[in-house]
Amino acid sequence: MRIAQRALVTGAAGFIGSTLVDRLLADGHEVVGYDNFSTGQRRFLKGASADPRFTLVEADLLDTAQLADVMEDADIVFHLAANADVRFGTEHPFRDLEQNTIVTYNVLEAMRAKGVRRIAFSSTGSVYGEAKVFPTPEDAPFPIQTSLYGASKVAGESLISAYCEGFGFQGFIFRFVSILGERYTHGHVFDFYKKLLADPTRLPVLGDGRQRKSYLYVQDCIDAIFTAVENAPDRVNVFNLGQDHYCEVNDSIGWISAKLGVSPELDYSGGNRGWIGDSPFIFLDCTRMRGLGWTPKLSIKDGIERTLAYLIDNKWVLEARA
Amino acid sequence: MRIAQRALVTGAAGFIGSTLVDRLLADGHEVVGYDNFSTGQRRFLKGASADPRFTLVEADLLDTAQLADVMEDADIVFHLAANADVRFGTEHPFRDLEQNTIVTYNVLEAMRAKGVRRIAFSSTGSVYGEAKVFPTPEDAPFPIQTSLYGASKVAGESLISAYCEGFGFQGFIFRFVSILGERYTHGHVFDFYKKLLADPTRLPVLGDGRQRKSYLYVQDCIDAIFTAVENAPDRVNVFNLGQDHYCEVNDSIGWISAKLGVSPELDYSGGNRGWIGDSPFIFLDCTRMRGLGWTPKLSIKDGIERTLAYLIDNKWVLEARA
Repeated sequence: MRIAQRALVTGAAGFIGSTLVDRLLADGHEVVGYDNFSTGQRRFLKGASADPRFTLVEADLLDTAQLADVMEDADIVFHLAANADVRFGTEHPFRDLEQNTIVTYNVLEAMRAKGVRRIAFSSTGSVYGEAKVFPTPEDAPFPIQTSLYGASKVAGESLISAYCEGFGFQGFIFRFVSILGERYTHGHVFDFYKKLLADPTRLPVLGDGRQRKSYLYVQDCIDAIFTAVENAPDRVNVFNLGQDHYCEVNDSIGWISAKLGVSPELDYSGGNRGWIGDSPFIFLDCTRMRGLGWTPKLSIKDGIERTLAYLIDNKWVLEARA
Repeated sequence: MRIAQRALVTGAAGFIGSTLVDRLLADGHEVVGYDNFSTGQRRFLKGASADPRFTLVEADLLDTAQLADVMEDADIVFHLAANADVRFGTEHPFRDLEQNTIVTYNVLEAMRAKGVRRIAFSSTGSVYGEAKVFPTPEDAPFPIQTSLYGASKVAGESLISAYCEGFGFQGFIFRFVSILGERYTHGHVFDFYKKLLADPTRLPVLGDGRQRKSYLYVQDCIDAIFTAVENAPDRVNVFNLGQDHYCEVNDSIGWISAKLGVSPELDYSGGNRGWIGDSPFIFLDCTRMRGLGWTPKLSIKDGIERTLAYLIDNKWVLEARA
């Protein structure tokens, strides 16, 4: 971003959060990073912590007093903290409500109390549930939620929009496909690599491997966020962030296997979904974001390969998120 | 409904809730009514309380232990309890989050704990925000929320849908226009009548009076709910409930004034919205609901006049909700 600002980043020690922190610092901004380290990694903030313009606050977003304190003098909030685990929502339904919906409310209330009026929010393509239009545009038909994660992100988006309308905030809502790249700590490349390390001859695959997904490289994701925050003019700005192409899970397995030099037997769990609430096809129409001049630099295949290279060089990540 | 059931009704002492309780009892069902009487009226349950098949539980939906207790042996939940005040959301933002979103989660969790799997939910046409398509169908473009009330109802809908998908529930989600009729305790007829009683010569009107709204009579609303719960086959069933016509606020003022025999000078606050987040035009496409054989019996004008007649005969309501 061009204009120097003081930014608060929630989830600052996460995959996307820490990458955003580094980019903000590189662009000359002051950054306050907020993380409870429930899933964040201290190593991701090693570079940032050496920068005098970076302040780390180790706290939970349920701690509203602490949150109000750090909100002081912020110009913009990048609210990335979340339970990002779409798959196991039914095992602990309160987690999505608390960590995604209630926490977003807490962030908005702290902003209101301190007069901070700009918020960027990491939502998800999962909010489209099982979309009927592909590629799916931002104004797709009113969706039915199929996961607790998606439900909690819709709730977060809706709260932000209502605060924009009711309190004069400006909101930037990003509906991501899955993001890949350095510091990636969960998802299918992570799972497959970990399994293939343990047994390169056999790979269990959820579903039938035909699920079609789109993946975006994390630096492309952050390029988009900065482009939108600098240029999007509306009170509520909603952007899909993804690729103009997709792959099958089987394609990804092929690329990963080739890079690792393995030929595992594929053991499919069957069905066209990886898990209950999994969407067998995620492919977002990103025309709106591209209209602001943004283009992703890496293809899905490049992103997956770069992610794999990162994991190979940083095996500690596999254990840190065991 | 034809099949005798044991129904739990939350918000049982409210306008719509108490009317639903009476209808369920009249149809032969057992009913447990749950209300914290924050806005509910004991007088509305006078008839029900004389029926041995009715049990009243005075408790808050934040009391999850009590909620789990009453869920025992229920066949279906009609979750009507809510903060229904769309207008003053910005004065107390936590109220919509707690009373609409979190409480809906509590109801769903109690259902899950006790194996209850059918839920009917009172949502709102406000979830469409400022719709761009009229009449607005259920699959209108993904809306942007303009009120905290709408945001909280979207969150409630989304939670219910995710529970249907994740836990095999069946959901019936009703997006109401404003409901009118006997036991009506807030809204424009209430406000106008109260003001005209105090001063029949002058009526303050929010906005320019040109806001176009649709209103449905409460017994027609309950006919629709019963029709849907009996006949809708899907896991998640979403229905608009409204009229195939609309009126302007000025029309309503004319009908009310004529019935009261007054000719007030109209004092408009100006602008095309009654308040921040007010939608200047609400008109829902109810083709889906009509497809199940439902037709409203009363027009908007009939509904408004019947509501006014009720308020004239029950002036205590004006004071009870002062």
